Amino acid sequence: MAVYTDVGDEELVAFVAAYDLGEVMSFKGIAEGVENTNYLLQTTTGSHILTLYEKRVQVGDLPYFLGFMEHLAARGVTCPTPLHGRDGAALRELCGRPAAIVTFLEGLWPRRIQPQHCAQVGAALARLHLAGTDFPLQRRNALSVADWRVLYESCAGRSHEIKGGLAQILGAELDHLEAHWPTDLPAGVCHADLFPDNVFFLGEKLSGMIDFYFACNDFFAYDLGICLNAWCFEHDGSFNVTKARIMLGHYRQVRPFSDAELQILPLMARGSAMRFLLTRLYDLLNHREGALVKPKDPLEFLAILQFHQQVRGPSAYGLE
Amino acid sequence: MAVYTDVGDEELVAFVAAYDLGEVMSFKGIAEGVENTNYLLQTTTGSHILTLYEKRVQVGDLPYFLGFMEHLAARGVTCPTPLHGRDGAALRELCGRPAAIVTFLEGLWPRRIQPQHCAQVGAALARLHLAGTDFPLQRRNALSVADWRVLYESCAGRSHEIKGGLAQILGAELDHLEAHWPTDLPAGVCHADLFPDNVFFLGEKLSGMIDFYFACNDFFAYDLGICLNAWCFEHDGSFNVTKARIMLGHYRQVRPFSDAELQILPLMARGSAMRFLLTRLYDLLNHREGALVKPKDPLEFLAILQFHQQVRGPSAYGLE
Repeated sequence: MAVYTDVGDEELVAFVAAYDLGEVMSFKGIAEGVENTNYLLQTTTGSHILTLYEKRVQVGDLPYFLGFMEHLAARGVTCPTPLHGRDGAALRELCGRPAAIVTFLEGLWPRRIQPQHCAQVGAALARLHLAGTDFPLQRRNALSVADWRVLYESCAGRSHEIKGGLAQILGAELDHLEAHWPTDLPAGVCHADLFPDNVFFLGEKLSGMIDFYFACNDFFAYDLGICLNAWCFEHDGSFNVTKARIMLGHYRQVRPFSDAELQILPLMARGSAMRFLLTRLYDLLNHREGALVKPKDPLEFLAILQFHQQVRGPSAYGLE
Repeated sequence: MAVYTDVGDEELVAFVAAYDLGEVMSFKGIAEGVENTNYLLQTTTGSHILTLYEKRVQVGDLPYFLGFMEHLAARGVTCPTPLHGRDGAALRELCGRPAAIVTFLEGLWPRRIQPQHCAQVGAALARLHLAGTDFPLQRRNALSVADWRVLYESCAGRSHEIKGGLAQILGAELDHLEAHWPTDLPAGVCHADLFPDNVFFLGEKLSGMIDFYFACNDFFAYDLGICLNAWCFEHDGSFNVTKARIMLGHYRQVRPFSDAELQILPLMARGSAMRFLLTRLYDLLNHREGALVKPKDPLEFLAILQFHQQVRGPSAYGLE
């Protein structure tokens, strides 16, 4: 939870005057969100989100992120849509930071995941993948297999502080992933962070997806691996094969898998577990006392990784 | 900035079902606020604030705070108004905490204080004081002169960590305040924390006051001393007599001072400076690393205190 940049009332009113949004009626910093500062901005024309992009976001990536949101929204995939000022610009500057206003998305993110949530997330991810096929910009995934060893090496010397023997486990897994990671699979724009807190529901129905600030070009099956890990494990660490089967089943109804994608799903799920394990480990080891954001537990993803290491094929996910 | 209690979607929907508020459309934790957890709750009937009362609030005080807000709103003093569930109750429980939903107040709090803000705050404080005269509940000010010595003694031994000689300065001031504090002045319900972040404006016009969780029965002149200190000092510590004259002038147009109140204003302003100096000092000395809220600077109020120590009468505030 974090508001890193405090925006004053006069700066805000001047900023909003560049848009056709009417008068500012209220403005509240939002506690959720880790990377950027988000405000809920109400004007006489409705509710909006004002985001200030903080240091961990590369400014050069913002046209990709904002462009993808706009691209998706134009194709009926509900997500926040960047608003343009009267001069046409969506990416602006406020308080010395890149900043944008996006549309407000109604809904709540689900804490207790039900199979029907997984069904809708699977279908929404497939629609996102299909909608992105004609998106013209490219962004390399900065947190994929080529990047894990650097992260690993920066953590290995201290990883025993979190769990004894962790460096050995991760080192062996990294060797395996590097040796077996595919080079040729159906690919396109991935969300790459589609956890429950990034998917909103109104009642039973998915109302939209948010937080496209890890979006990148990568294998679709890798994005599916991320969703399997984010949605189909219970709080006690157990894998819920019913949820996985429903999620993957609804995905493939919208975008059928190739056989190669199906067979490699366990490896993709291991890679996804590795990615979140390593970044959480890095964040925990490098956590400053007094920082605004509490680090998440990396070991949650060790349990997930170890589940997938035992998997011998896609039938473990309920697929033929 | 803090959300201390995370409320899940299912718990929220069940809680809101006790009210006639329609369906939940969105729910965001608000970063502002130090004592309690606040969420902006949008339903099909509009925007509302859901507050969960955290450990520093005495549960027994909540009927006073909520009752006073309702009392004020009924008399046209704009402030959040507690909503009642269909069973009539405004104070309920959520996630093991006392909780209430109040109306949403539009407006922004001003960062750069102008004389016209001070004019409106003065008048609004006077209206609050008058509107409270027939409020039937009583709450002793738990942070007034009788309470400062305990705070002082818990800080004195370590106050040199903040500034050398601070214990001597505060000890001498405390002796003076205890010896001269009045026992008989016009009194009633005070806001007791009317800082700029608790007063909203829409454009030039004051749209309401919030945060009544320090409200208490005390001298009206003491509440005026708090406002003088909160609104009439510049960021460089200098006193702006124009703002003070305007604030006090607009106050007395709504509720005229007695001569006793006028003469004692410098002492009230010293007492107010002492109260915020001591609580900020206590919070700073007892700050836990990793706490969600960054402590405020106590020495800001030392400069304010020392200004008022030089004052020889109300003419220093621009009053005859």
